Amino acid sequence: MSELDPAGAPAHEAMTAPPPVIVLVRPQLGQNIGKAARAMLNFGLTEMRLVAPRDGWPNPEAGPAASGADLVLDQARLFESVAEAVADCSQVYATTVRKRGVTKPVVTPAEAAMEMHAAPGRAAILFGPERSGLETDDVAIARAILTVPINPEFGSLNLAQAVILVAYEWSRGVALAQPPAVALEPPASQADLDGMIGQLETMLDTAGYFFPPDRVPATRRTLRTMLTKPGWTAQEVRTFRGVLSALANPRAR
Amino acid sequence: MSELDPAGAPAHEAMTAPPPVIVLVRPQLGQNIGKAARAMLNFGLTEMRLVAPRDGWPNPEAGPAASGADLVLDQARLFESVAEAVADCSQVYATTVRKRGVTKPVVTPAEAAMEMHAAPGRAAILFGPERSGLETDDVAIARAILTVPINPEFGSLNLAQAVILVAYEWSRGVALAQPPAVALEPPASQADLDGMIGQLETMLDTAGYFFPPDRVPATRRTLRTMLTKPGWTAQEVRTFRGVLSALANPRAR
Repeated sequence: MSELDPAGAPAHEAMTAPPPVIVLVRPQLGQNIGKAARAMLNFGLTEMRLVAPRDGWPNPEAGPAASGADLVLDQARLFESVAEAVADCSQVYATTVRKRGVTKPVVTPAEAAMEMHAAPGRAAILFGPERSGLETDDVAIARAILTVPINPEFGSLNLAQAVILVAYEWSRGVALAQPPAVALEPPASQADLDGMIGQLETMLDTAGYFFPPDRVPATRRTLRTMLTKPGWTAQEVRTFRGVLSALANPRAR
Repeated sequence: MSELDPAGAPAHEAMTAPPPVIVLVRPQLGQNIGKAARAMLNFGLTEMRLVAPRDGWPNPEAGPAASGADLVLDQARLFESVAEAVADCSQVYATTVRKRGVTKPVVTPAEAAMEMHAAPGRAAILFGPERSGLETDDVAIARAILTVPINPEFGSLNLAQAVILVAYEWSRGVALAQPPAVALEPPASQADLDGMIGQLETMLDTAGYFFPPDRVPATRRTLRTMLTKPGWTAQEVRTFRGVLSALANPRAR
C-alpha cells in the first residue's frame, strides 16, 4: 500500500480511475456516519457524500465516532437527493444485502472493485439507511447492485462494516490495477443520463404511454433500468437524444 | 454461499480444511467480544476461543452486541493461555497491524485465506487486546503474521473490523469455486434485436432523420452499436418496441 499518499489517492491516479465516492443515503445516526468515515480512511477513501441525513449535518456525534478520520467528515458534501449526489459519477453501485426485484447486474465487492479500477470515470457506491436499507427508487438509479456474499442464515452487517468491506476491496485493487490497454470512453455522467431519460419520459407522457396511473412508477423504473444498462457514453447519449428529437419533430425532406 | 449450512460450516468440509478458529487474546470489553461474534457469523465462522478475557466469562455485555450471533458466544471456549487455546491447531496466524521485530512470514488476509483453504488441519487466528494488540510472546507462538494492508497514514481498525475482514476473506475462498448465485436473463436473440432496430429505423426514416444521404450507413452503424451494447433481454426489447409504438401512435387520454 506504499503507493497511497496521505490523502489516500493512488500516486498513479492520472492513469487509473479516481477512488470511488461513498454515498450515505438518509443515514440515521451521526455515530454511524463517523464510523463509516473511519472505515473509509483505513483503506484510503476520503470522499463522502451525504443525502438527507436524518439529524442534519454537521452532526456532533459523528466526530468522536470517526476516531481521527476528521478529514473525511470535514470534506463530506451534503445533497438533497441521490440523483444530485451522483450527478458527476459515471458508475453507480447500490449496496443491498437482499436481492431486489430489479433486473440489474449483481456484483460482489471484489468484482465491483475490479470494475472500478478498470473503467475510467468516477464511481459512486450507495449505502442505505441503517435500519431499512436503500429503497427501490434509490436502487433504480444505479447501474449495478453490489451485494456482499454473506451467510444466508445470518446476514447482519452494519453500515460501517459494509463500507469497510467495499473500501478494503477497492484498496486491494490499487496495487493490482493496471491502466487499461485501450482507453475506453467512460459512461456518460448520471446528469446526462437523467436528461436523456427526462426527455423520453416527457415524450411518452405526451403520447399517453404512461397508463394506467398505478403502474406508472414501475414503468418508469423499468425504463430507467433499461436505459442505464448500456453504460452509454456522453456521445451515445447525445445520439439517442437526437433520435428522440427527430421522432418528436419530424421534418419532411 | 448456498453451501453454508445454518451453523456456517461448508457442506464440502470433508474435502477441505475446517473453518478457522478465532482466538481473542485477553479481550477487554464484553461488547467487543459480542461484535466479533457477529462479524464472524456473517461469514460463516462459528468457533470462538477466549484467552483470559479481562472481565471474565460469560460477560453480560457480549450478548446484546452480538445482535443475534448467540450461537457463537454460547459455544465460545475459555482458555488460560494462548498455547492451550491453539493446542489442536496446525496453522496459527497472529494478527497485527504493525510489523513486529519477529522474523516470520507476513501474509495478507487474502493470502492467509488461500493457505487455510489449501492446507489440511485446523487454523487459528489470534487477535490481541483492543488497546495494545498482541504481545511479542503471543506472536512468537504463531507460524505467520497476518497483517491487513491498511492506509499507512491512518490505521485504525477495531477488533470486530479486523475479525470481519479475515472472516470475509475466508468466506470468499469458500465461494470462489461456486457458480454465481444469480442467473441473469440472457440477451434477446439477434432476430428480436433486428426487429427492434428495423422498427426504429423505419420511424427515423419517416421523420427525416437520415440526412445527408452519404452519412446514412455510418449513422445506421452508430445506432446499431448503441442498441446492441446493452444486451437487452427479450422482455426489454419488447418494452422498447412498446415505447416506439407509443411515440409513433400517440393516443389522447
